[in-house]
Amino acid sequence: MIKVAINGYGTIGKRVADAVAAQPDMEVIGVSKTSVSAEAFIAGKRGYPLYITDLSKREAFEKAGIAVAGDVEEMIKKADIIVDATPGGVGAKNKPIYELYQKKAIYQGGEDHEVAGTSFNAHANYKEAIDKQFVRVVSCNTTGLVRVINALDQAFGVRKVRAVMVRRGGDPNDIKRGPIDAIVLNPQTIPSHHGPDVQTVLPQINIVTMAMIVPTTFMHMHTIHAELDKETNRDEVLKIFREHSRIGLVTKATKITSNAELREYTQDLGRPRTDLWENGVFEDSVSVLDGKEFFCFQAIHQEADVIPENIDAIRAMMGTVKDPAESIRMTNDALGFVAI
Amino acid sequence: MIKVAINGYGTIGKRVADAVAAQPDMEVIGVSKTSVSAEAFIAGKRGYPLYITDLSKREAFEKAGIAVAGDVEEMIKKADIIVDATPGGVGAKNKPIYELYQKKAIYQGGEDHEVAGTSFNAHANYKEAIDKQFVRVVSCNTTGLVRVINALDQAFGVRKVRAVMVRRGGDPNDIKRGPIDAIVLNPQTIPSHHGPDVQTVLPQINIVTMAMIVPTTFMHMHTIHAELDKETNRDEVLKIFREHSRIGLVTKATKITSNAELREYTQDLGRPRTDLWENGVFEDSVSVLDGKEFFCFQAIHQEADVIPENIDAIRAMMGTVKDPAESIRMTNDALGFVAI
Amino acid sequence: MIKVAINGYGTIGKRVADAVAAQPDMEVIGVSKTSVSAEAFIAGKRGYPLYITDLSKREAFEKAGIAVAGDVEEMIKKADIIVDATPGGVGAKNKPIYELYQKKAIYQGGEDHEVAGTSFNAHANYKEAIDKQFVRVVSCNTTGLVRVINALDQAFGVRKVRAVMVRRGGDPNDIKRGPIDAIVLNPQTIPSHHGPDVQTVLPQINIVTMAMIVPTTFMHMHTIHAELDKETNRDEVLKIFREHSRIGLVTKATKITSNAELREYTQDLGRPRTDLWENGVFEDSVSVLDGKEFFCFQAIHQEADVIPENIDAIRAMMGTVKDPAESIRMTNDALGFVAI
Amino acid sequence: MIKVAINGYGTIGKRVADAVAAQPDMEVIGVSKTSVSAEAFIAGKRGYPLYITDLSKREAFEKAGIAVAGDVEEMIKKADIIVDATPGGVGAKNKPIYELYQKKAIYQGGEDHEVAGTSFNAHANYKEAIDKQFVRVVSCNTTGLVRVINALDQAFGVRKVRAVMVRRGGDPNDIKRGPIDAIVLNPQTIPSHHGPDVQTVLPQINIVTMAMIVPTTFMHMHTIHAELDKETNRDEVLKIFREHSRIGLVTKATKITSNAELREYTQDLGRPRTDLWENGVFEDSVSVLDGKEFFCFQAIHQEADVIPENIDAIRAMMGTVKDPAESIRMTNDALGFVAI
Repeated sequence: MIKVAINGYGTIGKRVADAVAAQPDMEVIGVSKTSVSAEAFIAGKRGYPLYITDLSKREAFEKAGIAVAGDVEEMIKKADIIVDATPGGVGAKNKPIYELYQKKAIYQGGEDHEVAGTSFNAHANYKEAIDKQFVRVVSCNTTGLVRVINALDQAFGVRKVRAVMVRRGGDPNDIKRGPIDAIVLNPQTIPSHHGPDVQTVLPQINIVTMAMIVPTTFMHMHTIHAELDKETNRDEVLKIFREHSRIGLVTKATKITSNAELREYTQDLGRPRTDLWENGVFEDSVSVLDGKEFFCFQAIHQEADVIPENIDAIRAMMGTVKDPAESIRMTNDALGFVAI
Repeated sequence: MIKVAINGYGTIGKRVADAVAAQPDMEVIGVSKTSVSAEAFIAGKRGYPLYITDLSKREAFEKAGIAVAGDVEEMIKKADIIVDATPGGVGAKNKPIYELYQKKAIYQGGEDHEVAGTSFNAHANYKEAIDKQFVRVVSCNTTGLVRVINALDQAFGVRKVRAVMVRRGGDPNDIKRGPIDAIVLNPQTIPSHHGPDVQTVLPQINIVTMAMIVPTTFMHMHTIHAELDKETNRDEVLKIFREHSRIGLVTKATKITSNAELREYTQDLGRPRTDLWENGVFEDSVSVLDGKEFFCFQAIHQEADVIPENIDAIRAMMGTVKDPAESIRMTNDALGFVAI
Repeated sequence: MIKVAINGYGTIGKRVADAVAAQPDMEVIGVSKTSVSAEAFIAGKRGYPLYITDLSKREAFEKAGIAVAGDVEEMIKKADIIVDATPGGVGAKNKPIYELYQKKAIYQGGEDHEVAGTSFNAHANYKEAIDKQFVRVVSCNTTGLVRVINALDQAFGVRKVRAVMVRRGGDPNDIKRGPIDAIVLNPQTIPSHHGPDVQTVLPQINIVTMAMIVPTTFMHMHTIHAELDKETNRDEVLKIFREHSRIGLVTKATKITSNAELREYTQDLGRPRTDLWENGVFEDSVSVLDGKEFFCFQAIHQEADVIPENIDAIRAMMGTVKDPAESIRMTNDALGFVAI
Repeated sequence: MIKVAINGYGTIGKRVADAVAAQPDMEVIGVSKTSVSAEAFIAGKRGYPLYITDLSKREAFEKAGIAVAGDVEEMIKKADIIVDATPGGVGAKNKPIYELYQKKAIYQGGEDHEVAGTSFNAHANYKEAIDKQFVRVVSCNTTGLVRVINALDQAFGVRKVRAVMVRRGGDPNDIKRGPIDAIVLNPQTIPSHHGPDVQTVLPQINIVTMAMIVPTTFMHMHTIHAELDKETNRDEVLKIFREHSRIGLVTKATKITSNAELREYTQDLGRPRTDLWENGVFEDSVSVLDGKEFFCFQAIHQEADVIPENIDAIRAMMGTVKDPAESIRMTNDALGFVAI
């Protein structure tokens, strides 16, 4: 059993913890939290040993009825690998302690590529992560783009990608961030950082991205426009998407035309935390014009699509599973993927 | 086993179906839908026999891969009791068919009190529903108000209630309804209909309500201001709320100060469909001024708080359980209430 | 003086009325309304003769203190030209009465191209409208696209355009329409209707558009991606935009990065009704990659950008000004365009 | 002419500047800004001398084409009185420099009462401000409450007030602040600070307030519930409101039922910056139950209702007008109040 610690039990960390706990070959040896909060109670209810950043706060936790297992350093010492799900930029600051104890660590997309040196997507470059000490799972948006672009590139060759990201303003439980009634260019210069970030995984791709932020909380929406090398048609593309275990097709018969209805469907399916781990590609939007111009809309659940990638990264880095397809299948099976 | 049909498998109906299925003494014999949609697929995945309003659409369902068990009339004939969760106003039109087949039926708060003659809340007037043919479970807002007011009234006597309802604009999956950036008086005259609706269950209460609609999708927020007959204090009130099995207290230690964070917590708890079946009373807001003036904020999950009430109403109307406390305990246990 | 009637004194109609009243060569001879409302009071305060659709409602208007000049038919008879700003689809139904009285009429973008036979944009095809009986001013989104595409096409030749429209959900005063927390594909198929609509004015353009609706109320946001025939660079494109009297450049120094801040600026400028009549192209976003690939973001004020186009269409159809540049200058001067 | 400087040319400051400029007895001698922004351009277009906080930034302003008159200290020296419209908390830090130059200064509601020692509302306590060096104009919400409560108290005596404030999340041009889809208790404890703040102007009033924040940008909405000493009825209350020059009545005939529609109406009226300087009391909501219980809804434009109060405070502090009614009339006339 791979001993996994989750440093930062927030939006991503709590999901990674549950996903780790569901795998047959790994276990959660601890999660960390800086202060008493709803999520600290949840860690307790789940039975995850809770480590805290500052032991002087132990009393506050215990007064609230939450057991404290020790401090974060103790947790790191006990782990084989740490999934660092701290806020963007904090991960880089944690690197020395992981190095001190010679532990492997996974960073999230909020850190720069250079912090880890290897940026990861299970379908695109699993093998590059094998036995690495540090790996960065790319952000939700980049993960969503890479899945589709890599699949198209393998099948048809991708000459260039022009994508627009309409991003949610804040997560559902974030009550501070806006905007309330605005479309914010993010940034107003072109390209946005997403294109270069895709290239940390797929360096060969010519890609330009533009991004905006809108007042929604659940799932980004992408338009993807790609020029292909080889001629194809809509049916061939759909076939490739159907065979991709992390691309889901939202069918016309569901009458779903928005991220909100897709959330409802994911919730009705009984997915834990309403999580859409796969890309939500709208089947009716998948188009190929003149044989070589691909278009689609896809919904990307910002809290969830990187979760299975973290799990696969653990296996690759630990070297316990060398075959990407095997790890992906193990991950998906354990999470209980049910086709959307 | 009580044979329950759910007429209208939408926001309320799909929740009632799962709640019925979870009870030891009742079963879902069918649910109904008018057209192919995401929810029709969910009914299929749940294994509920699906009846449709218009058999000429059978082909459309079957083409989408959804089995059709028959039409709604057949479903009604097979049931002991029908939970009518059709859109507001449609329930009244369905009454003749329930009468024709001499079936019991439960209406929701979108119907007028007169349609059923008995308006229901399990803690307040369970016994009035025993053996009735028609009962109306009051709306989400009214249910939320009745729970608190009835508890206060039983303990201290309530001289008058002045409450303000800040209502969500639409359900999370409703992409048509607004407002987007407005606070809408609903209505601008005073009182809103909620006060009189509370009186359909608690006729003795002097209550005036005012209501607004705001651009949110999850949970209404109420301010309740009540003048009490007997002197009391905050601790006594909290004790009563803690002992009430459908009033949840959102504690200060969770740092939750909004409906959005409460939703996240409910979701993290693993509740099906993120459902908050109980009132979400903010513990820190519970105040008693000068011994007789009560104040609090409470969050009311519009999709969920009436679900356990529907289950209790089934037992009362069927006459299988005469003791409200017993039915409430059975319902809550089967749903797996975990304290918020 | 050209006698102009405005049929439908709503979001567009009230703006057209004020714009007509500001011109030296035309006058408002009447506006129409179907029922008593805030806008009916405004018509009265502005001194526009108010005609109503149904004279049986005259008493309701007069009881509210609003004078009624007669019915819509009387208004039409008195006019040289009618600007039909009724809701989409109603304009087509009004065509027979305009034909009966042999009046010229301008339709808005909510009507199909075929209703008028000529779709209009002042910079692109003013001369096609000269002396026509019926002309349709294209919708706000199409107007915004046509201005930029036509300018690029004249200067560099446009090989193809791929544009994404992120649309506001409802107008600022619309309290019914959503979505509240969703990104809605509109439609989920590709292309959206905007591409073909651009071709009603610029038939030579290869264009594919995709559209979404988001929870905002003020201004759509477009990303425009165009491949050009001739090589150029950012400075040349900016020069062309600066010289275009209906393309405004939002400069970096203002620190404006959203439609909301642009609205504030427009409001601070003292524009009537906060109207942004020109395209709001974000200067910093204007990019040319590899000499031939153009990108930009632009904000389009859905209530305002078609207003000056309606004014120009009046002059063209009446035949009083044959030179587009002269009409455009007259319109802009009378509105008091101040550079954004 | 009273020489007025506006320290902080933002949401409030820019409105105060225009209101000062519109008065016959005062002039704007300068406004201040910390960095180049859209508002700095507006100051230039209005012709207000622009002073900056840090002269080392002069070059940045001048490069953007904005003339700089000097630094803030110079501006203060030239003024008779400073309206401090800097962000909450900054005003207190500015007090020493106003004292150094022995200048009068007006603070806004973001500062504590103690910073000025006198909290101000023109109708309630104008005379207390006469000849004072420091006065604080209370916040938008407090101003809105004080106007109604003071009017009721003078006419009928107010025994107690229970009010709920549903607050906008951020101003229309604020793209950072949320919430996006949440109702946030602000605070969750009872009372909110608004009650005590009302008492800084009306110390005799028994008042308890509760406040929430919702995802809207324009105008707070209040429910006011007051118990009166003397019996009255709806018509008497409406008469008092109609005679109050800063309480506007939103009539039923306008069909306005929300702050969004009220904004549209204010905008259609041609109000500068769409400003609603008066309380927007919904006429149809004004209710008196059992002779002594008053209820109403009112909309409070957070950017605007304190503007005329600042103007009156200037006259009171300068001692040039001793009669509140005279100053209020002068202010309103100069702003061009047109009845809503």
